[in-house]
Parts: sequence; structure tokens; C-alpha cells
Amino acid sequence: YPVNPKAREILGLKAYPSLLHLPETPDLVLIALPPEGVPGALREAAERGVRAAVIESGGFGEAGEEGARAERELVEITRKAGMRFLGPNSMGTYNTSNGLCCGFAPVTPDSYRRGCVAFVAQSGLFGAMYLYRMMRFGFSKVCCLGNKADLDESDILEYLEGDPETKVVCLYIESVKDGRRFRELALKMLPRKPLIVLKGGRTEPGRKAASSHTGTMAGRDEIYEAFFKQLGIIRAQSFEDLFDLAQTFACEPLPKGRKLGIISLTGAGCVVAADAAAFSELPLASYSPRTLKMLQDLFPGWAPVGSPLDVWTAVEESGFVKTYRVSLQAFAEDEGVDIILAVIPAMRSFREEIKEAFSDLKLSKPLFLVLLEGEAEVYEEIASFLRERDLPPPFPDINRAVRCAGILANYAERFGGLRE
Amino acid sequence: YPVNPKAREILGLKAYPSLLHLPETPDLVLIALPPEGVPGALREAAERGVRAAVIESGGFGEAGEEGARAERELVEITRKAGMRFLGPNSMGTYNTSNGLCCGFAPVTPDSYRRGCVAFVAQSGLFGAMYLYRMMRFGFSKVCCLGNKADLDESDILEYLEGDPETKVVCLYIESVKDGRRFRELALKMLPRKPLIVLKGGRTEPGRKAASSHTGTMAGRDEIYEAFFKQLGIIRAQSFEDLFDLAQTFACEPLPKGRKLGIISLTGAGCVVAADAAAFSELPLASYSPRTLKMLQDLFPGWAPVGSPLDVWTAVEESGFVKTYRVSLQAFAEDEGVDIILAVIPAMRSFREEIKEAFSDLKLSKPLFLVLLEGEAEVYEEIASFLRERDLPPPFPDINRAVRCAGILANYAERFGGLRE
Repeated sequence: YPVNPKAREILGLKAYPSLLHLPETPDLVLIALPPEGVPGALREAAERGVRAAVIESGGFGEAGEEGARAERELVEITRKAGMRFLGPNSMGTYNTSNGLCCGFAPVTPDSYRRGCVAFVAQSGLFGAMYLYRMMRFGFSKVCCLGNKADLDESDILEYLEGDPETKVVCLYIESVKDGRRFRELALKMLPRKPLIVLKGGRTEPGRKAASSHTGTMAGRDEIYEAFFKQLGIIRAQSFEDLFDLAQTFACEPLPKGRKLGIISLTGAGCVVAADAAAFSELPLASYSPRTLKMLQDLFPGWAPVGSPLDVWTAVEESGFVKTYRVSLQAFAEDEGVDIILAVIPAMRSFREEIKEAFSDLKLSKPLFLVLLEGEAEVYEEIASFLRERDLPPPFPDINRAVRCAGILANYAERFGGLRE
Repeated sequence: YPVNPKAREILGLKAYPSLLHLPETPDLVLIALPPEGVPGALREAAERGVRAAVIESGGFGEAGEEGARAERELVEITRKAGMRFLGPNSMGTYNTSNGLCCGFAPVTPDSYRRGCVAFVAQSGLFGAMYLYRMMRFGFSKVCCLGNKADLDESDILEYLEGDPETKVVCLYIESVKDGRRFRELALKMLPRKPLIVLKGGRTEPGRKAASSHTGTMAGRDEIYEAFFKQLGIIRAQSFEDLFDLAQTFACEPLPKGRKLGIISLTGAGCVVAADAAAFSELPLASYSPRTLKMLQDLFPGWAPVGSPLDVWTAVEESGFVKTYRVSLQAFAEDEGVDIILAVIPAMRSFREEIKEAFSDLKLSKPLFLVLLEGEAEVYEEIASFLRERDLPPPFPDINRAVRCAGILANYAERFGGLRE
């Protein structure tokens, strides 16, 4: 029901002059008014018996002392009425299982993929913005916490902990409002669902920016660092890292150990991957006699069969598809390999061969495919191809992939035995 | 001239049974034979008076003791004849000013953009593979060092130092063959041309991989770290980072100082950018009274005008194009701002407005545009739009952009006054 005192009809729907004129009590009210209009709308909602609201309006806690006072007023009104709300300064929630879409980002059920990742952001716009990525990638719920005047990250964690559609939880926060409650919820959730956090306001300038973003007191980073580490919360370093990790936990099975088997079409890829593996404390795989035999048959006699496996000469000798298929198969069946990293240039000339090599792949081990970015078009084409087959999406960089493999292994070591 | 004892014609060109049968002495010989055929071909080349060769064949220093012996033989043959060669295990060089293309990557003059970045890789395939990215991005020379049995990174640096088409030099190496010579060349080059190095073989597993990649003794990383730092060589952390930095130095002017002006459509973007700026030791800009006035006029009365500048409410009040144009203009003219960071979501709905806001932009300060990745298609479209106007290409992540801004500022501080 659109509510607007000046309109009779909005987008073909009958508009009502106030909440009090609606033919029924709504389950949820979305408020998108200038800040001075919000308290009145909330009072009307309370009078009408509404139990939940999303306040999209900004100009509260993030806008100085006067804004903070206005924000406290919203809390008073809703507390009295037994109402709960998200925001202010929030784009609300997006729910792919029932199609609810509170924000103004044009997200419709036919435009997104349902998936298992929930994304919660202490931000008005940000979560909604990332919907575009989530739409391709697949998500369960998105929630924009805004200023967290009432509902906060712990309330949402509590919901997501029990949400059967959510397997991975991503959080952008500038503060934790109730450390004790957050800790309890995280402890309960972590053995079954990884919790990946990007914390804004780590530095003094960042904390100041957070204060004018969501009126947040961001707190000392060393404390958050220790807190996250102790609980086993995964800390993302950037938004890109957050999505790399989300993708990893959403798409990869947990490994049984840390041994990394590397297959690369380029020797420099082998070297850079071996360095990255060492930095992430992933030992390089050693091969069983059976694997060694399978691999040796692919290579010309003079070429070494190493770990990492530089397959360039094997590709020349035995062809791209056979080389990758046989190596992946050998790694999949070798107990000396827990995680597989395959590095391939996203070159036009390899396009069809890459697809063929990966088309019937059935693996019970995590596979990280790095398509070294040659041509964006080829990259996107292969990424779609993999997505359609429910294979893990590719990475454009070796170091990003190996970092995610390391964090996946850390999680598996700590919680692996308990995961659903 | 194709040379092959078994063919009379190759791709429509008359083939010759040996180098000795050629109607003239070639300037350069490319050798792509199995390893055992290489010494004979080199001897023929020497006999024919050839002065330069690229040896693409593998199976030498990277293939055990026997391979190393065979590699030494290549050096003996060529030394005696006064010949120089690249490789073995090299794809040779690519030169966009004369169209020379030694490798088998299908790179033709009509398929690439000429640019000012040279890329040198101690690798057979790798440099060639990255040509695809370079083709979009614009490069001057690409050189694959391979095993460096004769010509090494210092020889190529010496050439690039004097190459008028090269303004930025990127290097992937697993070792420096002659530290003293490299140091002298780097000292000479650095004040005028940034040198960006990704060093493979930083860890024990990486060093082992390097040894079977190019037969390299990679050496201790602490020594390289100190060596690079002392000279002012820029150290890349990954291939992605190498290209981010190359792009930065190729497209951005040097800043006059370190003060970062941040404009972001999202508050979370402001917070994350402020943190990243602090980690890179870039202080946030403070605005002149004139800038403050220009900005305040964009915002609704209640909204704070901060640094970072969260323009969401200004965009609502004054429109996207006006907000970004005025803010960018104000930052461009304010001495309190040395480097500009603009953060925008790559949302379909902003596509035309982003283009309009950036279309007539003339800036003498570095501008880092972050298009937070929403839709890949929108990102690529805007990237092309900027490229056509010779504007710096966008970044998909805030932290990557700010890291590059910090490294650009470091270089400017150390060498800025001397750069051409």
C-alpha cells in the first residue's frame, strides 16, 4: 500500500493519505521520508498496530548531536509500542525465498539467483549496492543495518543462525553493539556456518568516518582482532576479499587437510602459487606412486614431474584436455592432495578446451580454478559455464585463490568435524 | 623464412631445409625445436653469421643436471660466434612499435594498443599470456627472459632505460643474475621510470618451484626486500598487484603530496577508504573555505560535509552528475587535495550519469576511480568509455586503488622532482 498525502495513485496502485487509512494493518512499514517526517509516521504506525518498520531516511545518528537526539526519539516511540525497526539510514532487507525487497535497488525475483550466502551490512546503501554481485552469485538474505538504533547485527545473526537457507554469513560492520551477545551467537553459529567479517573503522581516520556514516563508536582494532581470532570469525581485508571468501565457503567442500596440489600451465604460476601456499601455511602435495605414474605418462621423457605440477610440456605432448583431466583425476584420488589449485590463462585459444576439461568434473575436494586474466570476455564466459554446472567460480589471481584456500583449511581444521 | 627439412611450404611461405639455404642472413633466428635439435640449429646460425636468436625450446636448465649441461653448451656455441640469445625456454619479445612478435600467442599489430608499459618476465609463457591484458591496456615491449642462459633482466633493463616508448617497467623475476649491474641500471632508470618488480621464489617451496621452472637459484627474500627498498624499486605482491601498479604509473600524473580527497556514494566506502588511506599513510584532505562552500551548496542543510565526502545525500539533493562534477572540480582546485579517490557503485542505473560526470574531466592530479563491482558488463562499458577519453582506468576495489595511490605518492616523494 503506497502512503502519500499528495497522491491518489502511485505506479497504478491506490495511494492512501496516511497509515491510518489503510484497509488492513500491514506486517511491515517502509519509511522513506525526510528525517523530520519520520517520528510522525512511526507514531501512526504504532497507533495502527504495526509491529515492524524499516526506516530508510538518513539524517539521524550520523548527522551530529541533533540527529542523535532525533534517533533516540525513534527508539522511544517504538519501545513504547512494542515495535522493532531496522535503521534509520537503512535500505532494509532482501529475501530471495519470499521475494521481499525493501530498498530502491531494482531487484526482482527473476533477476537474481537464490543462494546460500547472507550479507549483512552496517550501511544504508552498501548492502543493496552489492546486490548486483549477489544477484549473479546467489544469496539467501541481504540486510542493511543502517544506524542500528534498534535492531543490530546480533539480532540478524540470531535469525540467520537458524535460517535453513543460509550456509555462510558475511558481515560488514563498524562496531559490535553488544559484544557478549554477539560472542554467544557467533560461538553457536560458527561450527555450522562460517562467519566472515569486514570491520570498518580500524584506524583513527576510519573511526571518524564511521562516526559520520552511522554514528558509530568503532572501538580499538586490536580488541576486535583478538575477539575475532579467539572465536574463529574470519576477518576479510577488503570488500573484494569478503566476496572471494563468501564464494569460497559457499561453493567449496571443506578439505580434510592442508596439502595443496597445484596444476599450472605456466611455470611462473607454479612459483607464485608455491610462494602463496607457503605464506598461507599450505604444504605442497607429494604424490602417491599411482599419481606419479599417471602424470609421467602425460609428459615427454625429459620433463620433470614436480609439485607444483608445471603442465606446459604435458599439454604440448598430450593435449590440454587430457592433461588437465588426468591430473585433476589423479589429484582427486590421491590422499596426498587435500585441496586442488588449477592455474590456466583465460586465453581465447584455450576457451573450448577449458570447458571440455572441466565439464564432467566430479570432485569431493575443494578446487580453486585461477583463470589468469587475459580476456575479460573469455573469463566471463568460462565463469558462466562453471556456474551452470554448479562448479566453483574462478578466481582472477593466484594469490587471492590461495589465500581463500588457506582460510578454508583453517576453518576446516577448527570446525570441520562439526559442520553439517 | 620458415626453416624445416621436411616441408616445402609453411603457411604459404617457401620453407628452407636449413639456415644455410636461406637467400640472406636473417637478423634474428627463432628456434622452436625439441631440445636435442637446438645446438645444431645454433651452430648453423653461427655459421650463417646470425647475431641474435630466441630459443623457445624447453628442456634445459629447468630439467635437471643433463638439461643444465645442454644449456651450457648453447652458451659456448654462441659465445664463440659472438651471438646473443634470449632463452632457452622463452617466448621472445613483442614490440608494438615495429610489430615484431616472436611467440606463438596470436598477437598482431591490429589487435593491441600501443602504450608506455614494458613487461619483462623470467618465464617462457607467462609474459606472452599477459599480452592479452596488455593488448587492451597498451604496452610498448614485452620480453620473456626464459632461463636467462645469455641475456638477462639487466640487458633488457639497459635497453628499456633508453627506450623512448617505455615509461614504466614491470618485471617478473625469480632471481637477479648480476646484482651489481642491476643496481646500477635501476639507479639510473628509477628517477625517470618506475620499476615494478614481482619476485617469485620468496619462500622455500617457491624457490624449489623456481629451480624447476627456469633453473634459478632464487636467493633469500630478506636480501631482495632490502635491495628493492634501498633503491626505491616498487615491489608487487601478486600478478594482479603488478598490473594495478603498472596501470597507475602509466595513467596517473605524479601527485604533489600525500593528501587524499575521497568522494564516495556510500558511507561504508568512506569508512573502508579512510582505513585504507591510514594504512598507506595518506592523510585525509582538509578543505579550503572555497571548497567547503562549493560542497555545502550540494548537500541538504542537515547533512554533514566531511572528509571523506559521503555524497549520497548530495546526490539525492543535487543529482549525481552535478554532485560528482562539482566535487571533483573543487578537489582539483584545492591545494589541500593532492590525490582524488572517487568511489561509485557500477550499477546499471548510474551508467549514463557516471559517463556524463567524467566525460569532460581535465585533471592535473591523480584520480583513482573505484567502480564497486556490481555488474561486470557496466564495469567494462565504463572502463572502455574512460579509456577512449584517455582517463585513468577504474579499479574494482577500494583497497587496491588506495594501495596504488600510496605507492604512487611514495614514488613521487622520492623521485618526483626528477621525473621527465
